[in-house]
Amino acid sequence: MDYNEQFAAFNHTDDSLALHTDKYQINMAQAYWQDGMHTRKAVFEVYFRKLPFQNGFAIFAGLERVIRYLHGFRFSESDLAYLREEGYSDEYLAYLQTIRFTGTVRSMKEGELVFANEPIMRIEAPLAEAQLIETAILNIVNYQTLIATKAARVKHVAPNDACMEFGTRRAQEMDAAIWGTRAAYIAGFDATSNVRAGKLFGIPVSGTHAHAMVQAYRDEYKAFKTYAETHRDCVFLVDTYDTLRSGVPTAIKVAKEFGDRISFKGIRLDSGDLAYLSKEARKMLDEAGFPDAKIYASNDLDEQTIMNLKAQGARIDVWGIGTKLITAYDQPALGAVYKLIAIEDEAGKMVDTIKISSNPEKISTPGRKRVYRIVNKTNGKSEGDYIALEHEEPQNEQRLHMFHPVHTYIAKFVTGFEARELHHTIFEQGKLVYQLPALQDIREFVQENLDILWEEYKRTLNPAEYPVNLSQECWENKMKLIEEVRRKVKEV
Amino acid sequence: MDYNEQFAAFNHTDDSLALHTDKYQINMAQAYWQDGMHTRKAVFEVYFRKLPFQNGFAIFAGLERVIRYLHGFRFSESDLAYLREEGYSDEYLAYLQTIRFTGTVRSMKEGELVFANEPIMRIEAPLAEAQLIETAILNIVNYQTLIATKAARVKHVAPNDACMEFGTRRAQEMDAAIWGTRAAYIAGFDATSNVRAGKLFGIPVSGTHAHAMVQAYRDEYKAFKTYAETHRDCVFLVDTYDTLRSGVPTAIKVAKEFGDRISFKGIRLDSGDLAYLSKEARKMLDEAGFPDAKIYASNDLDEQTIMNLKAQGARIDVWGIGTKLITAYDQPALGAVYKLIAIEDEAGKMVDTIKISSNPEKISTPGRKRVYRIVNKTNGKSEGDYIALEHEEPQNEQRLHMFHPVHTYIAKFVTGFEARELHHTIFEQGKLVYQLPALQDIREFVQENLDILWEEYKRTLNPAEYPVNLSQECWENKMKLIEEVRRKVKEV
Repeated sequence: MDYNEQFAAFNHTDDSLALHTDKYQINMAQAYWQDGMHTRKAVFEVYFRKLPFQNGFAIFAGLERVIRYLHGFRFSESDLAYLREEGYSDEYLAYLQTIRFTGTVRSMKEGELVFANEPIMRIEAPLAEAQLIETAILNIVNYQTLIATKAARVKHVAPNDACMEFGTRRAQEMDAAIWGTRAAYIAGFDATSNVRAGKLFGIPVSGTHAHAMVQAYRDEYKAFKTYAETHRDCVFLVDTYDTLRSGVPTAIKVAKEFGDRISFKGIRLDSGDLAYLSKEARKMLDEAGFPDAKIYASNDLDEQTIMNLKAQGARIDVWGIGTKLITAYDQPALGAVYKLIAIEDEAGKMVDTIKISSNPEKISTPGRKRVYRIVNKTNGKSEGDYIALEHEEPQNEQRLHMFHPVHTYIAKFVTGFEARELHHTIFEQGKLVYQLPALQDIREFVQENLDILWEEYKRTLNPAEYPVNLSQECWENKMKLIEEVRRKVKEV
Repeated sequence: MDYNEQFAAFNHTDDSLALHTDKYQINMAQAYWQDGMHTRKAVFEVYFRKLPFQNGFAIFAGLERVIRYLHGFRFSESDLAYLREEGYSDEYLAYLQTIRFTGTVRSMKEGELVFANEPIMRIEAPLAEAQLIETAILNIVNYQTLIATKAARVKHVAPNDACMEFGTRRAQEMDAAIWGTRAAYIAGFDATSNVRAGKLFGIPVSGTHAHAMVQAYRDEYKAFKTYAETHRDCVFLVDTYDTLRSGVPTAIKVAKEFGDRISFKGIRLDSGDLAYLSKEARKMLDEAGFPDAKIYASNDLDEQTIMNLKAQGARIDVWGIGTKLITAYDQPALGAVYKLIAIEDEAGKMVDTIKISSNPEKISTPGRKRVYRIVNKTNGKSEGDYIALEHEEPQNEQRLHMFHPVHTYIAKFVTGFEARELHHTIFEQGKLVYQLPALQDIREFVQENLDILWEEYKRTLNPAEYPVNLSQECWENKMKLIEEVRRKVKEV
């Protein structure tokens, strides 16, 4: 049987991501194009309404993948062939064929701290283009931001230990494994087990051996010995048969026999009571003369279990985190949305737009905005974020009125601040003008960002609510548009 | 700035999946190769220990992707270049370069019902090969099986309604979106919003328009009209401003104006109280003379919310399921494992292997096994699954002793049965010998499989436990190996 014949199951070649979008985007683009609306300039913002994991902040990740996607955006021949089969007209397909991304993107940098209801990314582009790219952008940003945030939570409870991402086998398919581990590395993880992620991103890769190796030799001693003969840095997995009665003693025996011929880095526990086993194993290793040997642990760990194990005095030095991190197990989706906040009208003038909803948190904030982090010059800590309309200049104000956008009585005046703008220009009318930072730089950027945040916002349980405020003008503009819509609805 | 220069951020070309594996697999393969163990024949089984979502069954999905992966398995030049940088020896790399998948795979068909602790897939291959492919196989099978099972739960509570997969924007990166929607389609979903999935797999694609379209026209009437002018089958999204006061009346107005020029398929609700809104909208549509117009609903739906909405008399005809399905929100990971169950010894004889654990459910079942579904010839329903050693022939027995492998007093004798073997040969010594079925056939296969299962196993809440039994011989073999390991541990 022939390979190609077998894989006729793929109806068309998978040679483009342009159709990695929802069908309604293709339909709306068609309506706009037929109506002559497709070239109107539209402005969309990406933001989420609620922080994941009830955390005090999120870490934005995904920009690099979004840039690659936008840069390469075009409909391939196979895309067009498929759409033709689906009944779209030749004229519309001829138009789609010409589409490239020609818009302007302003975005937070990867690794920036981001909070609920503030624009992460702003896309200004011809309406049809801006619509077609929505789904893929959200697909990328939602997942990578979610995992970076989850990883930061884990790292927060084990700041001085090494944290390894070990989740590929439980990840939600292949892309999640590699982009997820990259997000975890950005947020402070130290290594991954996924070799492809190491190859693509330059993340340090870590790993020892599995139970299967002990089983293959049907003897722990033989297995450890063979491993030691072929690897200098040895971590032995000790729970294939019995951790304390067989695994740890055998690891010690092999480590003694090999002495300086290997560097005995430690042992790994992967089942059982990790608190108890780690304490006992620590004693055995110390007594055997291996005080520097590390204890690695894995088995459904997350920030909760790590915190509890530490509270119980577990002697674990290195954490292997799999399932709970790579799937963001306790909240496996972030709900970032992509909302139209301004559009060019018939006369070529930009007008603000709003979406109302019977769910009040779903009401969007109209108008082109900039986001500022208001940093106190005296202590270097952040006072909150301030969202202002495009033309405002909070950096030139002496005294900034910061108030809660819903509970407006929660307010303060800030002086002696620096207003750091968080958006950077990524694409300028389709041209990539942003220099992608190295992964190491993104990683350091995260730590710098975390440094300016008060500890109260960084607790993993019940953190304080970080202020995300609207400027007076931005707030009034929103109220005005809500009122306009209400009037209009009454007229129907 | 130049594209290639920008994307130097990818350290190596992403041209192969051979490194989509855990580092320890590369390390173990090295140890085996150096020790001359790499060509020993090893047998691994893929299985999970617990059904997801406390469901009564799971639906196996992922085989097609596994076949593609194994068929194309080889280390690319860039893989080898990366491993060289990581310090692996030229001799080892020269060996890796020669590796192709040469093993034999027996597997359940995609769409087969599968239960805890029964082998889904069995891989017999030279030890090093079998080890290298573990991670990717689990990555694929875990996710796709999880989503197929979740989709079956959703479809179970809405058997006569259309169910659409709408989750791409919330999926865990891109692969999850397309392979997840394929899994949902297999399990009975009717369409997807993801156009790329439509292109690749031939799944029906569905979609209408978004809030952004109404906002772009800043007028619901204009937006609906434009949509109606450019599309024959119209579903209007009615909650941009106010569902009952503006959205539904405007949809009706446009439907009346266009009359036969469009086919007015219905309206979509995406926020608010879906039970109340759907009942009110139904009345309005009926009174306006559109009794056939359907009501579509979306907004964080899953089998629980759908069941509750139905209990409240919601008048919803079509369900758009996003986040909760595509991420398997309530349990975002399946824990399938890949365990060595037999290996060739020094003398070339196959010997069974076991993994013991202080977590009793983690003990593996040794030996090469076959899985049979025991179907009662009288009523056509399944009596349970029966796992026997390779050489046993339960199909020739008159009276089958079926007993619970842990609580052995739970037992029955079955007569008048057909023992249907669930494994099929996919690869025979590296050669693909399986004809991949069409997606439609897999979909029908799922329904046939569900038909032979008693209703008690299919409830979404507290289903009965489906019997998965070991043959007497298989059970005794396991007990014998546990005893052997215990003796060995005592000797250490």
